Amino acid sequence: MRIPILKMHQYLLISIQVELDDHTALQFQEDLLNKIHETGARGVVVDLTSIDMVDSFIAKVLGDVVDMANLLGAKVVLTGIQPAVAITLIDLGIYMRDVPTALDLERGLDKLRLELGD
Amino acid sequence: MRIPILKMHQYLLISIQVELDDHTALQFQEDLLNKIHETGARGVVVDLTSIDMVDSFIAKVLGDVVDMANLLGAKVVLTGIQPAVAITLIDLGIYMRDVPTALDLERGLDKLRLELGD
Repeated sequence: MRIPILKMHQYLLISIQVELDDHTALQFQEDLLNKIHETGARGVVVDLTSIDMVDSFIAKVLGDVVDMANLLGAKVVLTGIQPAVAITLIDLGIYMRDVPTALDLERGLDKLRLELGD
Repeated sequence: MRIPILKMHQYLLISIQVELDDHTALQFQEDLLNKIHETGARGVVVDLTSIDMVDSFIAKVLGDVVDMANLLGAKVVLTGIQPAVAITLIDLGIYMRDVPTALDLERGLDKLRLELGD
Protein backbone atom coordinates (compact mmCIF):
# COMPACT_ATOMS: atom_id res chain seq x y z
CA MET A 1 0.00 0.00 0.00
CA ARG A 2 1.27 3.42 -0.91
CA ILE A 3 1.32 6.34 1.46
CA PRO A 4 -1.64 8.63 0.66
CA ILE A 5 -0.85 12.20 -0.34
CA LEU A 6 -3.59 14.77 0.31
CA LYS A 7 -3.81 17.93 -1.74
CA MET A 8 -5.22 20.97 -0.02
CA HIS A 9 -5.13 24.21 -1.95
CA GLN A 10 -1.49 24.63 -2.95
CA TYR A 11 -0.17 22.30 -0.28
CA LEU A 12 0.35 18.57 -0.05
CA LEU A 13 -0.18 16.88 3.31
CA ILE A 14 1.22 13.49 4.19
CA SER A 15 0.92 11.66 7.47
CA ILE A 16 3.17 8.62 7.57
CA GLN A 17 1.45 6.10 9.82
CA VAL A 18 3.36 2.93 8.94
CA GLU A 19 6.85 1.89 9.85
CA LEU A 20 8.77 2.81 6.72
CA ASP A 21 10.67 -0.02 5.11
CA ASP A 22 13.20 0.81 2.40
CA HIS A 23 10.89 0.03 -0.50
CA THR A 24 7.95 2.03 0.89
CA ALA A 25 10.23 4.98 1.61
CA LEU A 26 11.59 5.05 -1.96
CA GLN A 27 8.11 4.61 -3.40
CA PHE A 28 6.94 7.52 -1.25
CA GLN A 29 9.83 9.66 -2.48
CA GLU A 30 8.87 8.98 -6.10
CA ASP A 31 5.13 9.44 -5.51
CA LEU A 32 5.63 12.72 -3.69
CA LEU A 33 7.85 14.20 -6.40
CA ASN A 34 5.38 13.13 -9.10
CA LYS A 35 2.52 14.64 -7.14
CA ILE A 36 4.36 17.94 -6.69
CA HIS A 37 5.03 18.03 -10.42
CA GLU A 38 1.45 17.12 -11.30
CA THR A 39 -0.31 19.51 -8.90
CA GLY A 40 2.16 22.39 -8.91
CA ALA A 41 2.12 22.34 -5.11
CA ARG A 42 4.28 25.02 -3.50
CA GLY A 43 4.54 23.48 -0.06
CA VAL A 44 4.52 20.03 1.54
CA VAL A 45 4.07 18.92 5.15
CA VAL A 46 5.26 15.41 6.02
CA ASP A 47 4.01 14.44 9.45
CA LEU A 48 6.00 11.76 11.26
CA THR A 49 4.02 11.71 14.53
CA SER A 50 3.29 7.99 14.22
CA ILE A 51 6.87 7.01 13.41
CA ASP A 52 8.66 5.52 16.43
CA MET A 53 11.89 4.58 14.78
CA VAL A 54 14.07 5.53 11.83
CA ASP A 55 17.32 4.08 10.60
CA SER A 56 20.02 5.88 8.66
CA PHE A 57 18.60 4.81 5.28
CA ILE A 58 15.12 6.16 6.03
CA ALA A 59 16.62 9.36 7.43
CA LYS A 60 18.60 9.79 4.22
CA VAL A 61 15.52 9.21 2.06
CA LEU A 62 13.57 11.80 4.07
CA GLY A 63 16.42 14.30 3.92
CA ASP A 64 16.81 13.69 0.18
CA VAL A 65 13.12 14.18 -0.54
CA VAL A 66 13.32 17.64 1.03
CA ASP A 67 16.18 18.59 -1.29
CA MET A 68 14.56 17.00 -4.33
CA ALA A 69 11.27 18.82 -3.68
CA ASN A 70 13.20 22.08 -3.34
CA LEU A 71 14.66 21.48 -6.80
CA LEU A 72 11.11 21.17 -8.11
CA GLY A 73 10.21 24.44 -6.40
CA ALA A 74 8.26 23.13 -3.39
CA LYS A 75 9.17 23.69 0.23
CA VAL A 76 8.95 20.70 2.59
CA VAL A 77 8.47 20.81 6.35
CA LEU A 78 8.87 17.66 8.48
CA THR A 79 6.62 17.62 11.54
CA GLY A 80 5.98 15.50 14.58
CA ILE A 81 9.46 14.04 14.98
CA GLN A 82 9.25 11.99 18.20
CA PRO A 83 11.85 12.47 20.95
CA ALA A 84 13.15 8.93 20.45
CA VAL A 85 13.52 9.56 16.72
CA ALA A 86 15.39 12.82 17.36
CA ILE A 87 17.76 10.96 19.70
CA THR A 88 18.37 8.23 17.11
CA LEU A 89 19.03 10.76 14.36
CA ILE A 90 21.60 12.70 16.33
CA ASP A 91 23.20 9.46 17.59
CA LEU A 92 23.52 8.42 13.94
CA GLY A 93 25.16 11.74 13.16
CA ILE A 94 22.23 12.90 11.03
CA TYR A 95 21.57 16.52 11.90
CA MET A 96 19.10 17.55 9.20
CA ARG A 97 20.13 21.14 9.85
CA ASP A 98 18.71 22.45 6.59
CA VAL A 99 15.40 20.66 6.95
CA PRO A 100 12.58 22.84 8.27
CA THR A 101 10.69 21.13 11.08
CA ALA A 102 7.72 21.87 13.29
CA LEU A 103 5.96 20.27 16.24
CA ASP A 104 2.81 19.15 14.47
CA LEU A 105 0.90 19.32 11.20
CA GLU A 106 -0.89 22.57 12.08
CA ARG A 107 2.33 24.34 12.99
CA GLY A 108 4.01 22.92 9.90
CA LEU A 109 1.31 24.45 7.72
CA ASP A 110 1.64 27.77 9.56
CA LYS A 111 5.38 27.69 8.95
CA LEU A 112 4.87 27.03 5.23
CA ARG A 113 2.30 29.82 4.93
CA LEU A 114 4.70 32.22 6.62
CA GLU A 115 7.69 31.23 4.48
CA LEU A 116 5.71 31.26 1.25
CA GLY A 117 4.04 34.52 2.17
CA ASP A 118 0.46 33.23 1.80
CA MET B 1 -2.00 -1.19 6.41
CA ARG B 2 -4.50 1.12 8.04
CA ILE B 3 -5.85 4.23 6.38
CA PRO B 4 -4.03 7.26 7.83
CA ILE B 5 -6.14 9.89 9.58
CA LEU B 6 -4.70 13.41 9.68
CA LYS B 7 -5.67 15.83 12.41
CA MET B 8 -5.70 19.49 11.48
CA HIS B 9 -6.98 21.88 14.10
CA GLN B 10 -10.44 20.57 14.99
CA TYR B 11 -10.83 18.58 11.79
CA LEU B 12 -9.82 15.13 10.70
CA LEU B 13 -8.82 14.59 7.07
CA ILE B 14 -8.77 11.23 5.35
CA SER B 15 -7.92 10.48 1.77
CA ILE B 16 -8.76 6.90 0.87
CA GLN B 17 -6.28 5.86 -1.80
CA VAL B 18 -6.70 2.09 -1.76
CA GLU B 19 -9.52 -0.02 -3.06
CA LEU B 20 -11.50 -0.69 0.09
CA ASP B 21 -12.03 -4.34 0.91
CA ASP B 22 -14.55 -5.22 3.61
CA HIS B 23 -11.98 -5.66 6.37
CA THR B 24 -10.15 -2.41 5.62
CA ALA B 25 -13.45 -0.52 5.49
CA LEU B 26 -14.55 -1.82 8.89
CA GLN B 27 -11.12 -1.16 10.38
CA PHE B 28 -11.33 2.38 9.02
CA GLN B 29 -14.78 2.84 10.56
CA GLU B 30 -13.46 1.80 13.96
CA ASP B 31 -10.23 3.84 13.69
CA LEU B 32 -12.11 6.97 12.64
CA LEU B 33 -14.59 6.77 15.50
CA ASN B 34 -11.78 6.19 18.01
CA LYS B 35 -9.86 9.14 16.58
CA ILE B 36 -12.90 11.42 16.81
CA HIS B 37 -13.37 10.37 20.43
CA GLU B 38 -9.70 10.81 21.26
CA THR B 39 -9.17 14.18 19.55
CA GLY B 40 -12.59 15.76 20.09
CA ALA B 41 -12.70 16.59 16.39
CA ARG B 42 -15.83 18.47 15.32
CA GLY B 43 -15.64 17.76 11.63
CA VAL B 44 -14.30 15.10 9.27
CA VAL B 45 -13.61 15.12 5.53
CA VAL B 46 -13.33 11.73 3.84
CA ASP B 47 -11.96 12.15 0.33
CA LEU B 48 -12.80 9.40 -2.15
CA THR B 49 -11.12 10.89 -5.24
CA SER B 50 -8.93 7.82 -5.75
CA ILE B 51 -11.77 5.34 -5.36
CA ASP B 52 -12.96 3.99 -8.72
CA MET B 53 -15.45 1.47 -7.49
CA VAL B 54 -17.69 0.76 -4.52
CA ASP B 55 -20.01 -2.12 -3.83
CA SER B 56 -23.11 -2.05 -1.67
CA PHE B 57 -21.23 -3.20 1.44
CA ILE B 58 -18.61 -0.44 1.20
CA ALA B 59 -21.34 2.12 0.49
CA LYS B 60 -23.19 0.98 3.62
CA VAL B 61 -20.03 1.20 5.74
CA LEU B 62 -19.38 4.74 4.48
CA GLY B 63 -22.99 5.78 5.06
CA ASP B 64 -22.91 4.22 8.55
CA VAL B 65 -19.69 5.97 9.55
CA VAL B 66 -21.34 9.32 8.78
CA ASP B 67 -24.25 8.48 11.12
CA MET B 68 -21.96 7.03 13.80
CA ALA B 69 -19.72 10.11 13.75
CA ASN B 70 -22.81 12.30 14.05
CA LEU B 71 -23.73 10.40 17.22
CA LEU B 72 -20.30 11.24 18.59
CA GLY B 73 -20.88 14.90 17.72
CA ALA B 74 -18.73 15.21 14.59
CA LYS B 75 -19.97 16.17 11.15
CA VAL B 76 -18.66 14.15 8.18
CA VAL B 77 -18.46 15.30 4.57
CA LEU B 78 -17.65 12.83 1.77
CA THR B 79 -15.73 14.41 -1.10
CA GLY B 80 -14.43 13.49 -4.53
CA ILE B 81 -17.05 10.88 -5.42
CA GLN B 82 -16.18 9.90 -8.99
CA PRO B 83 -18.87 9.90 -11.70
CA ALA B 84 -18.62 6.11 -12.07
CA VAL B 85 -19.04 5.66 -8.33
CA ALA B 86 -22.08 7.96 -8.30
CA ILE B 87 -23.61 5.90 -11.13
CA THR B 88 -22.95 2.64 -9.26
CA LEU B 89 -24.43 3.98 -6.04
CA ILE B 90 -27.68 5.13 -7.66
CA ASP B 91 -27.89 1.89 -9.69
CA LEU B 92 -27.59 0.00 -6.40
CA GLY B 93 -30.39 2.12 -4.97
CA ILE B 94 -28.08 3.83 -2.48
CA TYR B 95 -28.97 7.50 -2.47
CA MET B 96 -26.99 8.79 0.53
CA ARG B 97 -29.42 11.71 0.66
CA ASP B 98 -28.50 12.70 4.21
CA VAL B 99 -24.77 12.52 3.61
CA PRO B 100 -23.11 15.88 2.97
CA THR B 101 -20.84 15.77 -0.06
CA ALA B 102 -18.52 18.14 -1.90
CA LEU B 103 -16.42 18.10 -5.06
CA ASP B 104 -13.02 17.96 -3.42
CA LEU B 105 -11.16 18.12 -0.11
CA GLU B 106 -10.87 21.92 -0.12
CA ARG B 107 -14.59 22.41 -0.78
CA GLY B 108 -15.41 19.77 1.83
CA LEU B 109 -13.44 21.71 4.44
CA ASP B 110 -15.17 24.95 3.38
CA LYS B 111 -18.53 23.22 3.77
CA LEU B 112 -17.63 22.01 7.27
CA ARG B 113 -16.40 25.44 8.32
CA LEU B 114 -19.64 26.97 7.10
CA GLU B 115 -21.86 24.40 8.81
CA LEU B 116 -19.91 24.49 12.07
CA GLY B 117 -19.75 28.27 11.99
CA ASP B 118 -15.94 28.49 12.24
